[in-house]
Amino acid sequence: MSSNDHISKQFDTELESIRASVLQMGGLVESQIKSAVESLVKSDVNLMTRVIAEDHRVNAMEVKIDEACSQMIARRQPTAGDLRLIMTVVKTITDLERIGDEAEKIARMAKMLSQKNVLSKPRYHEIERASEIAVDMLRKALDAFARLDVVMAAQVVRQDDQVDEEFRGIMRYLITFMMEDPRTISTALEILFVAKAIERIGDHAQNMAEYVIYMVKGRDVRHVTVDEIEREVQQ
Amino acid sequence: MSSNDHISKQFDTELESIRASVLQMGGLVESQIKSAVESLVKSDVNLMTRVIAEDHRVNAMEVKIDEACSQMIARRQPTAGDLRLIMTVVKTITDLERIGDEAEKIARMAKMLSQKNVLSKPRYHEIERASEIAVDMLRKALDAFARLDVVMAAQVVRQDDQVDEEFRGIMRYLITFMMEDPRTISTALEILFVAKAIERIGDHAQNMAEYVIYMVKGRDVRHVTVDEIEREVQQ
Repeated sequence: MSSNDHISKQFDTELESIRASVLQMGGLVESQIKSAVESLVKSDVNLMTRVIAEDHRVNAMEVKIDEACSQMIARRQPTAGDLRLIMTVVKTITDLERIGDEAEKIARMAKMLSQKNVLSKPRYHEIERASEIAVDMLRKALDAFARLDVVMAAQVVRQDDQVDEEFRGIMRYLITFMMEDPRTISTALEILFVAKAIERIGDHAQNMAEYVIYMVKGRDVRHVTVDEIEREVQQ
Repeated sequence: MSSNDHISKQFDTELESIRASVLQMGGLVESQIKSAVESLVKSDVNLMTRVIAEDHRVNAMEVKIDEACSQMIARRQPTAGDLRLIMTVVKTITDLERIGDEAEKIARMAKMLSQKNVLSKPRYHEIERASEIAVDMLRKALDAFARLDVVMAAQVVRQDDQVDEEFRGIMRYLITFMMEDPRTISTALEILFVAKAIERIGDHAQNMAEYVIYMVKGRDVRHVTVDEIEREVQQ
């Protein structure tokens, strides 16, 4: 094995290790969202506390991967596709970290709701459905990243409309709920902010999917329409 | 002039040009926030339309600066402080672009509010005050970036509590407003989302300030307390 082969193999190993860390971080973030919503629906205070306490792990992973990316750029001086992959990772982990923040916020709002002595509680059915779509988007965005699958990435971008639609549905439902009994207003607003947090998780998953398309296609799709993206990935 | 001096001079010129672009993008984003809030307060539909139309300029600047950073890494292979500066730019422009999105959202919500035939309109006084704090944070974060001023950056981090406090005040005010006349609920919610957008602008400015501290101090402060940051910058 020549010295160049050796360096190149080390390079690939390091790149693979960074990629694996991103997927691991994604898995943790996914479980944080699910636990946060579950803790809300089941009024499970222990689970709320756990989600809040675990957020530091998400943060620590972001810092670690970010460091690894900077070191890799400084030491290995990657170009072209490799550099694009590393820049994609740097952006992806920022969005993952913010999804983690939203999960933590949901758990905090769940805690506030559980402490309130509410007369009538709105149902969480729509919140659960919206969160399932958001989690699905996140999982697909991570899959698309792992397999460099632009078709799946484009699906994620299109799915964001569904989360937005669910959010508007929740908002309409909560408005009716509040109008029927204005004493529920402050409770309903907490739930509206939970819905807003889920909507933002969808936005972050969409960002991640767009980075994947950029990484593979080398064209910035962040500010074009869904139709343009779909045409793009079919080429 | 030796060949090395020449390369190094070109390098500095390119870095300076990237830095100037970030400040220019920051200036545009700042004016977008101000115009968006002004369009809401004055019910100025033309100004709302202009803010929405101008968002693509913010997006285009992000794409351009992002490309310039990648090219600079690939061609100049910067290390240490120079690499840290470039990575800071890559993150900073992501936050600036998202602040631009929030400004656009405010203008869109202003448009919806202007089309509503409302019986009683809540006052915008607190919204204006919150947006002034958020703009001040953004301006200071950009200044801190331009001058590598960690003390100013730490001020921005501390200021975020003020925006959050204003947001909670707006929320309390709007809850009272809605309870007095439940017919105002949907209008009040639009205004609440404007307040939420301003709160997020504060969060993004805080992120930017934290990147500056990291760039200068080389320590990741994103996940530590304000007190720790202040101790850090005094060293």
